Amino acid sequence: MTGLTYRASGVDPSRAEGALAQVRERIARTRRPEVIGDIGGFGGLFASPGADMVLVATTDGVGTKLDLARLFDRHEVVGVDLVHHCVNDAMAMGAEPLFFLDYFSTSRIDPAVFARVVGAMADACAAHRCALLGGETAEMPGTYGAGAYDLAGFLVGAVQREAILDPKNVQIGDVCIGLPSNGLHTNGYSLARAIVARGAAAQGKDMLDVLKAPRLDMGMSLGDALLRPHTSYLDAFRSIRAVAQIHAIAHLTGGGWEGNLPRALPEGCGAVIDRAAWTVPPLFRVLGEMGRVPEDDQWDTWNMGVGLVVMVADADADAAVAAAPGAVALGRVEKTHEGERRIWFA
Amino acid sequence: MTGLTYRASGVDPSRAEGALAQVRERIARTRRPEVIGDIGGFGGLFASPGADMVLVATTDGVGTKLDLARLFDRHEVVGVDLVHHCVNDAMAMGAEPLFFLDYFSTSRIDPAVFARVVGAMADACAAHRCALLGGETAEMPGTYGAGAYDLAGFLVGAVQREAILDPKNVQIGDVCIGLPSNGLHTNGYSLARAIVARGAAAQGKDMLDVLKAPRLDMGMSLGDALLRPHTSYLDAFRSIRAVAQIHAIAHLTGGGWEGNLPRALPEGCGAVIDRAAWTVPPLFRVLGEMGRVPEDDQWDTWNMGVGLVVMVADADADAAVAAAPGAVALGRVEKTHEGERRIWFA
Repeated sequence: MTGLTYRASGVDPSRAEGALAQVRERIARTRRPEVIGDIGGFGGLFASPGADMVLVATTDGVGTKLDLARLFDRHEVVGVDLVHHCVNDAMAMGAEPLFFLDYFSTSRIDPAVFARVVGAMADACAAHRCALLGGETAEMPGTYGAGAYDLAGFLVGAVQREAILDPKNVQIGDVCIGLPSNGLHTNGYSLARAIVARGAAAQGKDMLDVLKAPRLDMGMSLGDALLRPHTSYLDAFRSIRAVAQIHAIAHLTGGGWEGNLPRALPEGCGAVIDRAAWTVPPLFRVLGEMGRVPEDDQWDTWNMGVGLVVMVADADADAAVAAAPGAVALGRVEKTHEGERRIWFA
Repeated sequence: MTGLTYRASGVDPSRAEGALAQVRERIARTRRPEVIGDIGGFGGLFASPGADMVLVATTDGVGTKLDLARLFDRHEVVGVDLVHHCVNDAMAMGAEPLFFLDYFSTSRIDPAVFARVVGAMADACAAHRCALLGGETAEMPGTYGAGAYDLAGFLVGAVQREAILDPKNVQIGDVCIGLPSNGLHTNGYSLARAIVARGAAAQGKDMLDVLKAPRLDMGMSLGDALLRPHTSYLDAFRSIRAVAQIHAIAHLTGGGWEGNLPRALPEGCGAVIDRAAWTVPPLFRVLGEMGRVPEDDQWDTWNMGVGLVVMVADADADAAVAAAPGAVALGRVEKTHEGERRIWFA
């Protein structure tokens, strides 16, 4: 028997090193003044904000949108998704981003794919003045299918203690303002993929053909619509914050409306949402019809065209709507049973 | 055609919720005074340390030790591993842990397994006074094999600016002090598994039988030896810090000795390590012989019985060795070519 080596067992640390070298410059461009030292330490160093600040930490993945990105060879999208998802989550607590770390896991690193994903992450971090402070690249032979990988992102932001968005700030009569999504963002892709796979099978077509066919009802193909990157709401948030007192924010991700909007409400409050206030984008209608997905399941899974809901006082609502492109007043906060938080669709 | 639902597509957010409910109390016990609010927000809140402090952020995975943990139904081990790996990495920069977040990804959540992994993480966090501040649980149908899951951990710690462990503090003549590992920790498992699989096949045995057989040379089975949790060195670090000025620390993980010890050295310095200073534990010898792994490959992959190397001034070396159980002086820092950082084995 010949001798075994780590390399022969399927792990080659030099692959990760080489892949990282390709994006080192783009990572360097995410540097902020608070970053101390260089990449290569056992941990990333970042000067602490003052004791009047509160750190906000969040972690997210991209889910099975990864499979679509791979199918279409559009790996940049999921890198951007990961950063934007985390930025929005921290922002939902009132925070501005400080730094980001990523976890990239696969059976065998493809340096070109890795560089595209992490390079796009770095660019998205730079666009948000967020330092890409570190990451872990794991080669796990046998864990993932050929070419498949998983991603996790971790972001730390900061907010002044008195500016934390606490659901307790929400008052009866507050206005719920919706900001438009550009698609599914990063949630509900397993359902979307099941719909397309079944729809394609029913038509005797290949799933990829169905995804690539141009569609007049959407102005693009299903695949293109499904691969739009998760919207970052940081600019919109800043614009609204400049003209209005924001009481709370719900980021509509996994679990859709029911799973997220109540998280931004205090007990005893419900949000009455007027579905006529906006038009559900064609992508959701097309998927819903193709899969015959019950209406409730659609709203419990997808954002249905609204990616973020911002709660402000009635007096601030007009200014807030005017401050952010596409913003719409969706409804109001009303009283409900003690201890309850809920949504009604009007 | 019947209607599709998110649940029918393989994702059921209530499974994650139910699994989390089982460990909520253990997570609550990780709470520190700096934690603000409750779990359930879009991000975890933690009061910032003062501006004289530096945040240290690190991310790690467990690699294919996950497969062994699953094979032996010992899911707690990898939860502990993840926390200890991150704690050690942050500590290698001089930091004490503040808070931790986890990413748990699988094709279909098994609530019992999830609760065991995350419960063990929570207990390990509590033992380190580290808040388990948040996490993401991803159900990704089709991504992982039946019962398989992946884990990523993210830890933020803090260190006073003047106490950052910077390789630049290391001086010619410094002593390298080794702290014992209890096994492979979380690195080199793909090689270990390949060795055992090939060894079992050569003997016409099942891999599990080889792993479970008691071994006189190790005082336990290979499986038990491979499933010992990653050692946390935080107590040893504190004890040494109390009696000695620590200049730098190398955490010997992925990449073994060559991959890690030079990271804790300044340019122009090499570490001369006397391999006779300690006895390589039987586990490494057994694996090395079973797989006929070239000696260099073993040292470039595994920690070979030393999990952490602490660099201190010669005058502090005796006190440092006396302060931590099992600590051994391994060698010294010597001058090497300009720009180079290296190890020599003596």
